[in-house]
Amino acid sequence: MEYKQVIILRKDLGMGKGKIAAQSSHASLEAYEKTLIKDPKAVEEWKNQGQAKIVLKVNSKEELLELFQELKNLFPCSLIKDAGRTQIAAGEPTAVGIGPVPESEINKFTKELKLL
Amino acid sequence: MEYKQVIILRKDLGMGKGKIAAQSSHASLEAYEKTLIKDPKAVEEWKNQGQAKIVLKVNSKEELLELFQELKNLFPCSLIKDAGRTQIAAGEPTAVGIGPVPESEINKFTKELKLL
Repeated sequence: MEYKQVIILRKDLGMGKGKIAAQSSHASLEAYEKTLIKDPKAVEEWKNQGQAKIVLKVNSKEELLELFQELKNLFPCSLIKDAGRTQIAAGEPTAVGIGPVPESEINKFTKELKLL
Repeated sequence: MEYKQVIILRKDLGMGKGKIAAQSSHASLEAYEKTLIKDPKAVEEWKNQGQAKIVLKVNSKEELLELFQELKNLFPCSLIKDAGRTQIAAGEPTAVGIGPVPESEINKFTKELKLL
């Protein structure tokens, strides 16, 4: 079974490259830690397979939150809200991280999303 | 003491946003894991303080590797090399992650670098 971590970022906020890098890293690390607790074997497999990370985009807050609501009971998920120190209002949701999870399972939910 | 994690990305590779997000997340996660082993108290402090991540840039492979060589004996550091599946040649160094480490200590080495 192939594992990957999926990171979903909001495109509509017009985040700069540094912001994208930071929010993505927040989402990745928090989802990783949740997965380590809920499914340590998935983490181990994923590491042995090279720790694939896939970065996708959504076009609105609503789309991001809808996905998070749908996925959070099925997979270990993080929802990142901006600290508001730069560029974006405090508390604004920016990113979601998922897993690592089996590729075949998460693809059912994310196949319509485009790569960032 | 204030802690932060520093992520340094190469600007000269012309990485797209998705690539930047993925390489940054690799660097962040790997540096985090190394810090967890070498200095778990730093990780705890950093989490309590809100997990600040700062993303900086360098303009060449040489600059990235030089920084990594200088920092790797002083702080828990990751050096990320691209898997070569997209955009960039396999094995090409793309990013460095550091810590979380005390802000006052890492700033001595990174103060000349600009934000990505």
